[in-house]
Amino acid sequence: MKEYDFGIVGLGVMGRNLLLNMADHKFAVAGLDLDTAKAESLEKEAKDGQEVKGTTQAQEFVSLIKKPRAIMLLVPAGKPVDGAIGSLLPFLEEGDIVIDGGNSYFPDTDRRFTELAEKKIHFFGMGISGGEKGARFGPSMMPGGDESAYERLRPIFEAIAAKVDGEPCVTYLGGGSAGNYVKMVHNGIEYGIMQLISEVYDLMKRGLNLSDAKIQETFVSWNQGELQSFLIEITGIVLNKFDEDSGERLVNLISDWAKAKGTGKWTSQNAMDLQAPIPVIDAAVTMRDMSKLKPERVQAAKQLTFTPSAVEVDEQEVISQLHDAFYFAMLNIYAQGLAQLTIASKAYNYGLNLEHVAKIWRGGCIIRASVLEDFRQAYSRNPELLNILLDEQIGGKVLAKQAAVRSVIKLAVDKGIPAAAFMNSLAYFDAYRSERMATNLIQAQRDYFGAHTYERIDREGTFHTQWD
Amino acid sequence: MKEYDFGIVGLGVMGRNLLLNMADHKFAVAGLDLDTAKAESLEKEAKDGQEVKGTTQAQEFVSLIKKPRAIMLLVPAGKPVDGAIGSLLPFLEEGDIVIDGGNSYFPDTDRRFTELAEKKIHFFGMGISGGEKGARFGPSMMPGGDESAYERLRPIFEAIAAKVDGEPCVTYLGGGSAGNYVKMVHNGIEYGIMQLISEVYDLMKRGLNLSDAKIQETFVSWNQGELQSFLIEITGIVLNKFDEDSGERLVNLISDWAKAKGTGKWTSQNAMDLQAPIPVIDAAVTMRDMSKLKPERVQAAKQLTFTPSAVEVDEQEVISQLHDAFYFAMLNIYAQGLAQLTIASKAYNYGLNLEHVAKIWRGGCIIRASVLEDFRQAYSRNPELLNILLDEQIGGKVLAKQAAVRSVIKLAVDKGIPAAAFMNSLAYFDAYRSERMATNLIQAQRDYFGAHTYERIDREGTFHTQWD
Repeated sequence: MKEYDFGIVGLGVMGRNLLLNMADHKFAVAGLDLDTAKAESLEKEAKDGQEVKGTTQAQEFVSLIKKPRAIMLLVPAGKPVDGAIGSLLPFLEEGDIVIDGGNSYFPDTDRRFTELAEKKIHFFGMGISGGEKGARFGPSMMPGGDESAYERLRPIFEAIAAKVDGEPCVTYLGGGSAGNYVKMVHNGIEYGIMQLISEVYDLMKRGLNLSDAKIQETFVSWNQGELQSFLIEITGIVLNKFDEDSGERLVNLISDWAKAKGTGKWTSQNAMDLQAPIPVIDAAVTMRDMSKLKPERVQAAKQLTFTPSAVEVDEQEVISQLHDAFYFAMLNIYAQGLAQLTIASKAYNYGLNLEHVAKIWRGGCIIRASVLEDFRQAYSRNPELLNILLDEQIGGKVLAKQAAVRSVIKLAVDKGIPAAAFMNSLAYFDAYRSERMATNLIQAQRDYFGAHTYERIDREGTFHTQWD
Repeated sequence: MKEYDFGIVGLGVMGRNLLLNMADHKFAVAGLDLDTAKAESLEKEAKDGQEVKGTTQAQEFVSLIKKPRAIMLLVPAGKPVDGAIGSLLPFLEEGDIVIDGGNSYFPDTDRRFTELAEKKIHFFGMGISGGEKGARFGPSMMPGGDESAYERLRPIFEAIAAKVDGEPCVTYLGGGSAGNYVKMVHNGIEYGIMQLISEVYDLMKRGLNLSDAKIQETFVSWNQGELQSFLIEITGIVLNKFDEDSGERLVNLISDWAKAKGTGKWTSQNAMDLQAPIPVIDAAVTMRDMSKLKPERVQAAKQLTFTPSAVEVDEQEVISQLHDAFYFAMLNIYAQGLAQLTIASKAYNYGLNLEHVAKIWRGGCIIRASVLEDFRQAYSRNPELLNILLDEQIGGKVLAKQAAVRSVIKLAVDKGIPAAAFMNSLAYFDAYRSERMATNLIQAQRDYFGAHTYERIDREGTFHTQWD
């Protein structure tokens, strides 16, 4: 009987595309889906000579796969993952490997890891980024789990992953839920950068009254230089799409009610648990929530009026400042997310190598950008780097842009345009470079009203004062 | 045998002070503590004619109290609360009332409420604010639980609470964990205002190089007008305390490593679950976390340098702008916290009356301020008010200060002083008064890379586009 190299459970868009990607790379892949149509159509989609097989039967599916078996789940996060594991378990054997390829909440992954370890089955949580196209032609993949079991998966994952300078955008990241955690923070950074782009767009459109064409051209040109990145690239594409019926740019017809699936929120909530400051990501989560208060905003727009400064600005100069300010804020967002990973790696014993993280984010994923190579080099120079802003080369580049971000924030303030991402990037930067923050006053107040005690700069110990 | 009106478990600072406060108001109160010294010293501390009794025996303690019994726990949040309930349970009877007076996490309160309801015992979660002095001479109290059982507690709580215009700062708030939830948000607002005060202090001290004496006098004068509040008042007191050894102002000797006990973090994390935007409170939580990165900040201060604008400013004019900007940002913080309560009340079926919340926050608690009476009146005018900024009188006052907050943020940007609370208050305000936010672009991007679909402003339905 034919033995298949790999199995995929869930033949929706992501599972199907990953399966066909593997088939392109000469792997024999079996697919399981309860939907007969999805299971049966698989073989028709494969090219000549590719070995793929779809089934609706879990037992048959498991029996098809070469031992130790490698089976990846591409089903919605939450109960469906537990359901899929439960349906496979009766047929799995010791040493088999189950990989969850969805955006599972990392504590769920830790629970499943432990449950399956008791049955001597290896469990991986693997974040996959790149959307439909990435899955089909080369995603970035973030696997975490048992290092020893990774060798069974490595040839397949390295074959299908995106490549940058010939290197695959996948590597073993760490134990337990390390892979899901890294993907969660990837998505938090994604939220931050998308919020930042929306603020640039808002400043250009409502603040400066630039034409849609001019705005679109600006994003296209930005993608040629140091801002080169997938999100800047698709902004240029998205802004150039026209509605077929009205001839209007489609983006102008889209509702401003921004949805979210939760990974950004998890990133912020967990950062607060770890006391890892990521204020721009927090602001991005909050501004999506703000977008949902539509009826209130309609009323507030009538009552809470503001007459923007009428001062003329030099359009080209402001666009140039926006470019540099974007670079500044974008680097602060990556700095916050990567610092959160450093803190989480200690807290959860992931053993993350940040150079590897930067490396596999260079291609395939939503936050891929030319700056990732700079970050990889920074971590290569100093694997113990606590914050990329402390790397002299990166810090120097950021410093060179700080005048621009200060100008852009003042412009936003004068124009009445909300610029939470820009503002929080600067507040983070200015607090981070404060040897002494003003939080000593907070400690004094806490001691006044709650007898919470305080520490001193001139002697050891814990003190309480009767203040009045 | 003598019957006592009320029982208190845990005779630490808070429990002892609340007990003596009740005794002052002619209630007979029994106290339980496992520490013999604490239990025995109680009777010595009472004045002549006051009926108080301490014991270390749970059974004796319960038997002393008039039925249906009313027993309040003042023990640390978490397992000690469950432990205390467990020690009382064997001796309690149907209809008895247990009140948790600590800062318990509200889901724990809901669990305990349900567990005790099965035994027909009424459980209250009651936030208490005001610190040691408040407990002794008049706190603000936020009880939630069974409304029918509240009548047994009302005379005692109303007697010991702080009074404003003769009205007690306590009232029944709502079902289940309503009381703990309101107290949690109270503390979130407290975090926000303390962060804001620290930013004013930082701007005056590092930004304008004002003398400590001038800064202290400014806070004292601010407490006379529309900024009158407990936190401004104690800032004036704290800044005027001198170290006995060195003669230096004590605040200058206090470490800037700001501690936190978690209620601010819970407020932000839960706001994200409810999609309730509270960006200034988020920033306050984050800046305390930032304060803990001391070694990194020391290094960053050397590498990430900035030369502040040398432009001369008119000291008095800037102080006046800071005053008005503080008012603006403070009102935004209350607006965010109160809006979160409105959203939470629907999500958790608390049935909160926001006028009552504003009323009991006017006195006794840490966030008491003269503006609370304005908020009470606003909710009295319109009980369905979704955000106090939409009240015409309050919105008008905030509008009158927006020029000041814009000036202050630009000054902070030019001086390199982190001003996250000011900035997030303005970003919130400018987003809130945007009929159309720029988040339509985010929806377009999400549809591009994840086929997440979008809605349109010109027709019903959900759409997906092939963007390239």
